[in-house]
Amino acid sequence: MTSPTLSCVACGETTSEWSSARCDCGEPRWVDVDVAGFDWDNVTDAPGMWRYESLLPVDRPGSLGDVAGDTPLVRTPRLDDVAGARIHVKNEAANATGSFKDRGSAVGIAWALEHGVDTVGTVSHGNMAMSMAAHAATVDLDCLVLVPADIPAERLGNIAQYGPTLLRVDGDYGKLYDRSLELGEEAGIEFVNSDAPLRVEGQKTTALEICEAFAAEGAQPPDAIVLPVSSGGHASGAWKAVRELHRAGAIDSLPRLYFVQAAACAPIAEAFERGDDEVTPVAAGETIAYSIANANPPSGNRVLAAARETGGAVLAVSDDAIRTAQREFATRAGLSVETSSATTLAGTKRLAESGAIENDDEVVLVATGSGFKERGSGETPDVETVKLDELGAVLGVER
Amino acid sequence: MTSPTLSCVACGETTSEWSSARCDCGEPRWVDVDVAGFDWDNVTDAPGMWRYESLLPVDRPGSLGDVAGDTPLVRTPRLDDVAGARIHVKNEAANATGSFKDRGSAVGIAWALEHGVDTVGTVSHGNMAMSMAAHAATVDLDCLVLVPADIPAERLGNIAQYGPTLLRVDGDYGKLYDRSLELGEEAGIEFVNSDAPLRVEGQKTTALEICEAFAAEGAQPPDAIVLPVSSGGHASGAWKAVRELHRAGAIDSLPRLYFVQAAACAPIAEAFERGDDEVTPVAAGETIAYSIANANPPSGNRVLAAARETGGAVLAVSDDAIRTAQREFATRAGLSVETSSATTLAGTKRLAESGAIENDDEVVLVATGSGFKERGSGETPDVETVKLDELGAVLGVER
Repeated sequence: MTSPTLSCVACGETTSEWSSARCDCGEPRWVDVDVAGFDWDNVTDAPGMWRYESLLPVDRPGSLGDVAGDTPLVRTPRLDDVAGARIHVKNEAANATGSFKDRGSAVGIAWALEHGVDTVGTVSHGNMAMSMAAHAATVDLDCLVLVPADIPAERLGNIAQYGPTLLRVDGDYGKLYDRSLELGEEAGIEFVNSDAPLRVEGQKTTALEICEAFAAEGAQPPDAIVLPVSSGGHASGAWKAVRELHRAGAIDSLPRLYFVQAAACAPIAEAFERGDDEVTPVAAGETIAYSIANANPPSGNRVLAAARETGGAVLAVSDDAIRTAQREFATRAGLSVETSSATTLAGTKRLAESGAIENDDEVVLVATGSGFKERGSGETPDVETVKLDELGAVLGVER
Repeated sequence: MTSPTLSCVACGETTSEWSSARCDCGEPRWVDVDVAGFDWDNVTDAPGMWRYESLLPVDRPGSLGDVAGDTPLVRTPRLDDVAGARIHVKNEAANATGSFKDRGSAVGIAWALEHGVDTVGTVSHGNMAMSMAAHAATVDLDCLVLVPADIPAERLGNIAQYGPTLLRVDGDYGKLYDRSLELGEEAGIEFVNSDAPLRVEGQKTTALEICEAFAAEGAQPPDAIVLPVSSGGHASGAWKAVRELHRAGAIDSLPRLYFVQAAACAPIAEAFERGDDEVTPVAAGETIAYSIANANPPSGNRVLAAARETGGAVLAVSDDAIRTAQREFATRAGLSVETSSATTLAGTKRLAESGAIENDDEVVLVATGSGFKERGSGETPDVETVKLDELGAVLGVER
């Protein structure tokens, strides 16, 4: 199996030598994809996201990886009023490990199988760790998961259930991210970290599916796609996806890409606000949206470019706004989303208030992960107790 | 909108008067479906389970109900050795509320909308309550959820997030089930309980999808489908599905249907073992598979018939076997399943040991619900901590 070339969209450097490491200029590389001949009419009927196999650098891996993606796009009219636009939700919780991370993990696993790598790895304390561990387990690959030393026990349990090799690492999380890529190359471990080229390839399929769903209705892409943003790996994938579709002529215009952070840890939103081209790391504050609290996002500069070049934005929302939005997802769309995902609705409200998003805009919120994995956040409601033989009276049909 | 006729498969009585109540003979009714003209080639390309609209008594309801079903069927080769057959898993956790219940809820909600009912209800302390509440919320219907008085706080929180009207009822749970149907008719509340005719219609789509997936590969249905069994509503749907497909000529033979209970509360398995046609209620013991611990299953007799007429069986497995199977689902199939769902693998092992299931049988395990909603069952693993600058040495690539 030959490897595709890699390019740096920031400095223009191209290399045919495969590496998961970053470009010498410091930015993450993208896998070069030949879009010639791509058309909505010639996607395959393969399962999951593998209908876009022609735009991916690997073939489907068998087992769990085969069913990554192909998540529902739900029209949610009861969110329209609170959001200020016509809302659709891309429900990534439908993936086997409950988040969008399965898309990138499936590509990473397929790559490892095709290239004879017997150990994969990742640096994560949540969704990505669960996803890599699960996917490795299904094809009997070893999986090394490096977690921060202070990870809560409950999240460790979520990851451990799939049986990976777990290691707590005491040190700066951003440095661990970079160091893992170096050590992985030496140790023969394919680290499929959050903005690794292979992961971005998988994660671009979220936006491919969104655009295809609109195309199937005879429509152009939605006016806007709204994503939570942490490392910037999913954002990078979304931007790459719409660029490739546009280059192939499958869409006439690019949807505006909006990215939302939690206010307590919003280095990309702050850089966007300042008009900077580069993100400056911050000291992270506490937020309920812990899974996107990335103080030094490795693809942060890519996110700034994606927002500016598509006419979108990067913004931050408060924990109170996130809590309200999470409740609205449940009580108006029937979706239990994780706190990070709730930022998309909170952010859309802000954008609608400012006029950046209009009432008749078709807006897709990407609900990146399931709320079922976040424990202990719900309050216990106070519920009345009645005796069975009094139930009729309570319902007003007998005395 | 006219209502379909209902028939009792047990006594043969047919009625054109719509009712969610049971037949006078005491058995649950089924909705009569005209299968004439049904063929794999003429299913629609509607989303979710609505590709089988011609076999369903309602049209799709819009919003969340539109995406119920269409869950992945995963080939899981690493389960073959432990199970003793060729294993596929139907992953119902992919539904929006994390269980197969969304299929029946979507039909119930659609019915309520079509018939001008403004309140739906259910008797449940888990998956079904979450599902009904979520689906009602998306179309602005009121939802009344009756829960047992001693429901654990955590499960109450899972249900409450969607904003239904909750009422704890102090009394016998089996009697509450029957009483809710009577009171619902008087109060104008459509109770879509677990073996209600509308719910069975939705839940039959699990087996329709399984059979279609095999047909798409040019194959006959799997040799066996294995389901956890509680009230018998899902079992009833599976049996109805394969009967309808067979009647339509879409399949040549019926898959064997196997149903698994937890040994601590196994009234149907015990009746099957004794050769009885009717289930005798039991005093329920404690089991980790709480969501299938039904001491007096309303469709229990239907389950016995389904197992016998398809050449299957009803069996019970221990909590230890369930725990082991749950771990194997995670470490070999990458799937976090609820304890109830793990019974399917535990049961298959037993069937393979006894020779009822053979090595080359194609067997589909229905993983009815997500493990992410069951909290506190996992142990916290003991994980080593290393310093970041020692990581290379630990990985063996530097000293």
